[in-house]
Amino acid sequence: METPTFMPRDPDYESRVRASFGRQAMMETLGVRIEGLGPGWIDVAFDHDPRFTQQDGFLHAGAVAAVLDSACGYAAFTLMAGDAAVLTVEYKINLLKPAKSDRYTARAVVVRSGRTITVCHGELSDVASVEPVAVMTGTMIALS
Amino acid sequence: METPTFMPRDPDYESRVRASFGRQAMMETLGVRIEGLGPGWIDVAFDHDPRFTQQDGFLHAGAVAAVLDSACGYAAFTLMAGDAAVLTVEYKINLLKPAKSDRYTARAVVVRSGRTITVCHGELSDVASVEPVAVMTGTMIALS
Amino acid sequence: METPTFMPRDPDYESRVRASFGRQAMMETLGVRIEGLGPGWIDVAFDHDPRFTQQDGFLHAGAVAAVLDSACGYAAFTLMAGDAAVLTVEYKINLLKPAKSDRYTARAVVVRSGRTITVCHGELSDVASVEPVAVMTGTMIALS
Amino acid sequence: METPTFMPRDPDYESRVRASFGRQAMMETLGVRIEGLGPGWIDVAFDHDPRFTQQDGFLHAGAVAAVLDSACGYAAFTLMAGDAAVLTVEYKINLLKPAKSDRYTARAVVVRSGRTITVCHGELSDVASVEPVAVMTGTMIALS
Repeated sequence: METPTFMPRDPDYESRVRASFGRQAMMETLGVRIEGLGPGWIDVAFDHDPRFTQQDGFLHAGAVAAVLDSACGYAAFTLMAGDAAVLTVEYKINLLKPAKSDRYTARAVVVRSGRTITVCHGELSDVASVEPVAVMTGTMIALS
Repeated sequence: METPTFMPRDPDYESRVRASFGRQAMMETLGVRIEGLGPGWIDVAFDHDPRFTQQDGFLHAGAVAAVLDSACGYAAFTLMAGDAAVLTVEYKINLLKPAKSDRYTARAVVVRSGRTITVCHGELSDVASVEPVAVMTGTMIALS
Repeated sequence: METPTFMPRDPDYESRVRASFGRQAMMETLGVRIEGLGPGWIDVAFDHDPRFTQQDGFLHAGAVAAVLDSACGYAAFTLMAGDAAVLTVEYKINLLKPAKSDRYTARAVVVRSGRTITVCHGELSDVASVEPVAVMTGTMIALS
Repeated sequence: METPTFMPRDPDYESRVRASFGRQAMMETLGVRIEGLGPGWIDVAFDHDPRFTQQDGFLHAGAVAAVLDSACGYAAFTLMAGDAAVLTVEYKINLLKPAKSDRYTARAVVVRSGRTITVCHGELSDVASVEPVAVMTGTMIALS
């Protein structure tokens, strides 16, 4: 997905995103790191971990979704006001193929940035393939 | 959600479901246990765990979704043929309120059982409240 | 789906819903009528019309979705404040079986009623069958 | 959305798509025309019609969804075998802004093409704006 061009409401969005991301125990547990971010987008990455697999040894859809959900939330958060909190209202995810790789990357971008509602697309890929493992569309809300 | 009434294709569905569930490392990591199951439905439960929280200390939507996704998958699996494998094609989840409880229960039921495609509803609740924390609709596919 | 029990914010919700529904040219074009409504729910019905079919003569998913979307919107609207407007943020629909009947009914109920966001479930059935044709989960927003 | 590069299973996919599209009474009723198509994608367009509006005079989400659903279905159909039929399993749509334009265009592209399941993205825009009105992700199934 292309890098979008948005003007952030809060010039200090990056430190705000990194601080909040750092407080997500779930991301630490899954070993997810921020690879890059800008206004309206974020890239994250993580390694395969057998603790988060399903019955056939693939990465569990729940882990895939957790990473994409956080990525969508923080992509939205880059464009929110400095005093806003972000919550996921809902998302939809399609699992496109089994996730069995040593390492995964995910990108989330803002599709529409409103005062209250932000809509994001997310895509998770394995490093050995050009095809995405999963795609997500999520709706985030700014609370202030 | 009401307990549905379906005829299972495979009379040994229960042991098949429990064995497959037992191989999901993700469910063991999250501490999810089967509380009950029948043709077209499953009930699971788990305790709060600070390793799976988001930035405000609530249960991460990814953990909520992982549990509901597995519940939907196994509700579908109860009705599949004995030699079939189940995969999640996609799901949509609405997070209805912050998940902050000591314990959670989730129920998934089959809404439509086809030869290839099964559609399920899932609902996750905290034990201290009558209101659901999250609702899911998922599409599962039988592979054989 | 069971009839929910909510307290309406606006005691005059029924006339407000009926007036707004009456202004939806799309519902008039599709021939959709309100069969009943209360706080947090609405029932509608309509007859098959060959103008709204797909390539095999079934009712087009777009017509199914239009009716369920309006039903979800007005179920949400029954619980909104008297000066609020309702918009659909998003929905997800599963088509469970081909829609080929003389007449259809649809029910939408509120799953969660918040100040800004309302989440609804909708179900569309044909009159000759107990099984639903389609199920929807939608997110509505109150604008004021 | 970029034009994808797929190899069609059926070299005569174009005439097959156009013939099936031509049998959708719903598309004729809405005035939707094919603007272009190729392996894994389709572009359609249509004019505003007051018969398909909601209570504030905007194009009803049901019309927006009907067009995107057909577009996703036919994008999927371009890649299916010559004897297959296509059905929508489910879709999710986000309405990004009110649809009030003289004319609309929509593009659908295949994100993943499987033997049974095809996943598509769709986007509907008004002609006067660069921003999309709605985005859809849909799951289609090939029946043979």
